[in-house]
Amino acid sequence: MNQSRLNRVIEGMKRENLPYILVSDKESIFYLTGRWIEPGERMIALMIAEDGRVCLVVNRLFAQTAEDGLPLVEYDDTEDCVAALAARLPETGAIGIDKRWPSQFLIRLMETRPGLRPRVGSAPVDEARMCKDAEEIAAMRESSRLNDRVLAALMETVKEGDTEAGLGRRYTDIARSMGAAGCSFAPLICFGAHCAEPHHESDETPLKKGDSIIFDVGLDLNKAMSDMTRTAFFGEPTEEMKRVYETVRLANMAGKAAVKPGVKLCEIDRAARRVIEEAGYGEYFIHRTGHNIGIGVHEPPDVSATSQAVAKPGMVFSIEPGIYLPGKFGVRIEDLVAVTEDGCEVLNELDIPEMK
Amino acid sequence: MNQSRLNRVIEGMKRENLPYILVSDKESIFYLTGRWIEPGERMIALMIAEDGRVCLVVNRLFAQTAEDGLPLVEYDDTEDCVAALAARLPETGAIGIDKRWPSQFLIRLMETRPGLRPRVGSAPVDEARMCKDAEEIAAMRESSRLNDRVLAALMETVKEGDTEAGLGRRYTDIARSMGAAGCSFAPLICFGAHCAEPHHESDETPLKKGDSIIFDVGLDLNKAMSDMTRTAFFGEPTEEMKRVYETVRLANMAGKAAVKPGVKLCEIDRAARRVIEEAGYGEYFIHRTGHNIGIGVHEPPDVSATSQAVAKPGMVFSIEPGIYLPGKFGVRIEDLVAVTEDGCEVLNELDIPEMK
Repeated sequence: MNQSRLNRVIEGMKRENLPYILVSDKESIFYLTGRWIEPGERMIALMIAEDGRVCLVVNRLFAQTAEDGLPLVEYDDTEDCVAALAARLPETGAIGIDKRWPSQFLIRLMETRPGLRPRVGSAPVDEARMCKDAEEIAAMRESSRLNDRVLAALMETVKEGDTEAGLGRRYTDIARSMGAAGCSFAPLICFGAHCAEPHHESDETPLKKGDSIIFDVGLDLNKAMSDMTRTAFFGEPTEEMKRVYETVRLANMAGKAAVKPGVKLCEIDRAARRVIEEAGYGEYFIHRTGHNIGIGVHEPPDVSATSQAVAKPGMVFSIEPGIYLPGKFGVRIEDLVAVTEDGCEVLNELDIPEMK
Repeated sequence: MNQSRLNRVIEGMKRENLPYILVSDKESIFYLTGRWIEPGERMIALMIAEDGRVCLVVNRLFAQTAEDGLPLVEYDDTEDCVAALAARLPETGAIGIDKRWPSQFLIRLMETRPGLRPRVGSAPVDEARMCKDAEEIAAMRESSRLNDRVLAALMETVKEGDTEAGLGRRYTDIARSMGAAGCSFAPLICFGAHCAEPHHESDETPLKKGDSIIFDVGLDLNKAMSDMTRTAFFGEPTEEMKRVYETVRLANMAGKAAVKPGVKLCEIDRAARRVIEEAGYGEYFIHRTGHNIGIGVHEPPDVSATSQAVAKPGMVFSIEPGIYLPGKFGVRIEDLVAVTEDGCEVLNELDIPEMK
């Protein structure tokens, strides 16, 4: 266990009046124990008690050793894994449940320990993870700089007839050749009208003159994730494309300019969104402005219209406004920022060219 | 909605006394609606009432059209998605919850509708999905046959110095060149002592003389998944390697021979496991014998020592016994079988050579 991280989690549990929590998120388990375990559909839970007791309930398949002193409760596929966990829990009281723990385990736990009062209990770990220390920030910066270089190299290769998925594979190949372990998410590259669907999955559509191109890409560099978006046009953009692009570019700048400690994340969303609304495209900016990032590519909290979270030094999040015109094209421009003592550091350095 | 599949689900709901269920599994939503939606961390729920009413609660980001008549409840990132769902649900009564629905949504739903009694409610859909019709079986067969050809082609290329992850990339490239959309899971290829860790993640370890090699690979061919494992030895295997390999080969054959309608899946596990136990390696077969497969690469039920499920025509599952000798080597041999009216069809045809 990383004791200083565990101590911060326990402080959070006390603030939230949670005597016990169950951590099942694999990134959180890695953050606290240094163990990367992919349990698939099998149950995993790191139990933490506010008095400092911990134990990891894990399927024997993911052979764990206790050399570092972490108490293990192992089970196999023939055993009732929730009963093995419940035996370590009290009969009554509040218990914090990892927000993504599959319901089947929670429902079974409630049958086994009907006196427990489950609450969403991810905040203590999420809040500890939220503020990165200098070492974590350095790793995040390195991941983003590599992402800059890989995307710059990719953009130089783009030619007519390239496909969305083909460019994604090329991005991955370049990333590997430059030393990344892999991507932080499947490259999201889309052309033309597909750019107007923020979650379009890259397919074999070929690039043609007049298309917008969204490159939304990120790397996993030693479990520090990067995530960046640039938009380009293949051939001469129309006046409308230029107007939309410039609006999004200014919204991205306005969002970044609003970042400093003490500002609510909803105010940062507002700063970016206002630029788009004032240009008359408000209804076409259909998602949040950003999300935190670290070991995970999407960490809480969001930078959204409703996010009451306050920016603190060490937070790293995306600023990614976009405008999506159904059936026509879309533009999104995204950078990662790290909150500093008096503002922010933009982790991406890849140019965002102005469009006259 | 696929009406005949929906009708089978509703029959299952009546059997289970569930007037309402919430389906969140993306494969199940695809199975019932033909819509493939990747909601990421966002809430999605297909509500089904036993009187036949349905509605899909989905984030507006995943732009859905109602052209096929499926009622939609859309929300955006600024809204309380669980409240939007709860408005469609009664105040009291049992409700079946998808087994993997993230706990945060269930806990919030219980706060909003404290009179509802949540139960694990995946069985009606899982059971409908479990027995494939002739068209689905044909697609599964085609996926497995392609997997046979891709792995055969890969095995011919293996040479000293190849790495685990490198062979995985080569498998993926060959698969793509032969027409697969992608893999059903990241190729799990391991060498030597890594083969003794059933969930070892392929890394850049180079192949050397004397290594065992496990190839555990599968394809996604139009949402029909395949999954197969072969074990080979690079260089002359030791007598112990031959003995272990032959034991696993015979266990695989015994498992397949036990498959016919009416047999419990635990008896199929027993048939394979007995061969390994009788050879003295029982303690080194540390996982279930298999799992069902279809649109998802792991579907319930398992073929395990505790599985009381009964084989029925149309089920497709894996038979994948293994022996894992820590620090030394491992062997696993896996085929997919489809249960027929009087036995089973083995969907893989790639040779499992005998080892004298």
